[in-house]
Amino acid sequence: MSTTVSPLAPTTYPEMPVVEGVRFATAEAGIKYKGRTDVLLLEMSEGTTVAGVFTKSKCPSAPVEWCQANLAGGKARALVVNSGNANAFTGMKGRATVSVTAEIAAKAIGCRPEEIFLASTGVIGEPLDPKKFEGVLDGAATRLADSPWIEPAKAIMTTDTYPKVATATVDLGGAPVVICGIAKGAGMIAPDMATMLSFVFTDAPIAAPVLQSMLSASVETTFNAITVDSDTSTSDTLMLFATGKAKGAKTITDAADPALAPFAAALHGVLRDLSHQVVKDGEGARKFVEITVRGAVSDASAKVIALSIANSPLVKTAIAGEDANWGRIVMAVGKAGEPADRDKLAITFGNIRVAVEGARDAAYSEAAASAVMKEQHIPILVELGLGDGQATVWTCDLTKEYVAINGDYRS
Amino acid sequence: MSTTVSPLAPTTYPEMPVVEGVRFATAEAGIKYKGRTDVLLLEMSEGTTVAGVFTKSKCPSAPVEWCQANLAGGKARALVVNSGNANAFTGMKGRATVSVTAEIAAKAIGCRPEEIFLASTGVIGEPLDPKKFEGVLDGAATRLADSPWIEPAKAIMTTDTYPKVATATVDLGGAPVVICGIAKGAGMIAPDMATMLSFVFTDAPIAAPVLQSMLSASVETTFNAITVDSDTSTSDTLMLFATGKAKGAKTITDAADPALAPFAAALHGVLRDLSHQVVKDGEGARKFVEITVRGAVSDASAKVIALSIANSPLVKTAIAGEDANWGRIVMAVGKAGEPADRDKLAITFGNIRVAVEGARDAAYSEAAASAVMKEQHIPILVELGLGDGQATVWTCDLTKEYVAINGDYRS
Repeated sequence: MSTTVSPLAPTTYPEMPVVEGVRFATAEAGIKYKGRTDVLLLEMSEGTTVAGVFTKSKCPSAPVEWCQANLAGGKARALVVNSGNANAFTGMKGRATVSVTAEIAAKAIGCRPEEIFLASTGVIGEPLDPKKFEGVLDGAATRLADSPWIEPAKAIMTTDTYPKVATATVDLGGAPVVICGIAKGAGMIAPDMATMLSFVFTDAPIAAPVLQSMLSASVETTFNAITVDSDTSTSDTLMLFATGKAKGAKTITDAADPALAPFAAALHGVLRDLSHQVVKDGEGARKFVEITVRGAVSDASAKVIALSIANSPLVKTAIAGEDANWGRIVMAVGKAGEPADRDKLAITFGNIRVAVEGARDAAYSEAAASAVMKEQHIPILVELGLGDGQATVWTCDLTKEYVAINGDYRS
Repeated sequence: MSTTVSPLAPTTYPEMPVVEGVRFATAEAGIKYKGRTDVLLLEMSEGTTVAGVFTKSKCPSAPVEWCQANLAGGKARALVVNSGNANAFTGMKGRATVSVTAEIAAKAIGCRPEEIFLASTGVIGEPLDPKKFEGVLDGAATRLADSPWIEPAKAIMTTDTYPKVATATVDLGGAPVVICGIAKGAGMIAPDMATMLSFVFTDAPIAAPVLQSMLSASVETTFNAITVDSDTSTSDTLMLFATGKAKGAKTITDAADPALAPFAAALHGVLRDLSHQVVKDGEGARKFVEITVRGAVSDASAKVIALSIANSPLVKTAIAGEDANWGRIVMAVGKAGEPADRDKLAITFGNIRVAVEGARDAAYSEAAASAVMKEQHIPILVELGLGDGQATVWTCDLTKEYVAINGDYRS
């Protein structure tokens, strides 16, 4: 596992404000290891609304199924996150565990089990004993505090080399509201399918259906536009909670309310920030790569092509080798299966166009392209020349360290 | 590039018989390097029929387009293969190059350019000067011989660590016919998109449409069932040539002719053998992995799931680490997007069932599973319990050497 912090880690952290109505505490439940914080309890005030987006895996974890089922109620009072065990592929026992855990948490907080949301990260296939939470959550409930946010961000880390936080303050109908988000994930995947988890909190008064439509819209160009290696966890969870405690803010019950626009933009910024931090902590990552595809027949087609490039081991190893190997980009465009015309294709690294009209750009200098590849942030632009479709995705390089981290973990 | 032979290389080579009507010679054209064999000329007798299967890339190389266009004629007199330059992504110049090369070859052999088939492997985006072939192919045409087959197999190697040949002798309507095949490819992909190429020759008298239907049927479970890293070359080419020179063999003009069955089976065996040799020479490979999915809703669905497992970096690094990490198999099944029911899933490594009915197999011993993972050949069986669909695919592990080979190549 990584012991050194990613070279792409942020150099400073933002000051994270209190979110009125949100309090948290961490605890040791001894789920896998002794003497280590492995549980996060987050309490939210009455009337908190909730939205969520989850893994598309056909084999989701028991907590994912629990959250999906309870999202319909639209109300949340607490979030419990544990590390050390993902409670995934645990059959009937896994379902019993989430019910019992929610009951324990509901008793500690004083609410209904259906208002408890759960996320688990760690090894899969191991039964998770819900008795581990007995007493532990009660104790945590007596220590709840509204700061500092770096604590919950640290508590949900697994192979992450740094905690991930982001924040924004924005006007909502004449009064300021805050957004605070945390995330964990060493790039979509992590050993033994530890999860990509992200939780975002606001004091804005926004109805659950509106929250859900904003979150679903924003995720497409943030958390669903990042990849480290194309592997999808059984536990990926992104949730948004709104306490409604901001004084003077306008209550939003209609997604089309124009007062919502600045908030939606700020939320998108927080999600993009957190998702980029996940990529930058990708296992073994040394380069942050932004891939934009323009001129596709549709936005959806552009995204398929961009992800084909972002997931290509051949492209990713070339970037690790600081090699402006545009032939591998052509290969990845070609294999995507989407409409593409070789003779209209143009490829640009940074501001160096290396290929145009289906052949090498005559003005292209290998030295200039190589200089781009030595940077930490590598922008790649592919122009298809077919239509107006476009998409941007973010990924990292594929290094020997990635293989070492993932080949040596469980042994 | 690899200097040591893959640990999965064959320990012996079969004796390759002469294919009546096929002669070959290698030559030095100085395409990229001086003093190195980089051209193969293969001449076939008049009346030779031909079939081919090519890359599905939307950005195919100029030689691929040339072969596809001329396949309709059904007749072949020569095959020219060069290394050092793939003539891919070379625009209009690339098309001119294949025309001129075919003219030079046709003159050397004494046939029409449309009867010449071409394949190129090497760097892409570099114009290939057809004048390099002038004189060279004429010279080669004076040195044609019908053996030994190891020579053309060696001539088409690029980053391969060993030459790949396979053969079969089989009855066709009362007389023996032979099949000899060669292949190159360090696992579907190779640096700078050098190609996966395979050429198979027989003296059987079989009409071109029958050859094509046999080849297309066989490729699905052989060359289209292998993957090293999911990357698809712009130049993948598999061609089958039949000279019809076998004495006493029955001429086959109908794909439904029952006399064809033993030949079709033998051809399938040769293609499977060659395709497995390509995987075993996968860049950095130390393990040969056979993934079988059963109980899917259809064969096509089973293959999508099997390839999702085979292409997962998380699964491949675990195998490199000799880790029976079945949780990553669950993850890869889940992300495939095909129908799967977590609670019916069973997973077996070798003869050790590690998971059943959506949870860990109670009888599963970590030591026994680990022993399977230490073998060179790792069979993985996934049972979905939904229907009768099944598929098998073959891949290799993902090692640090893969990253080194592909990250360091062009520099």
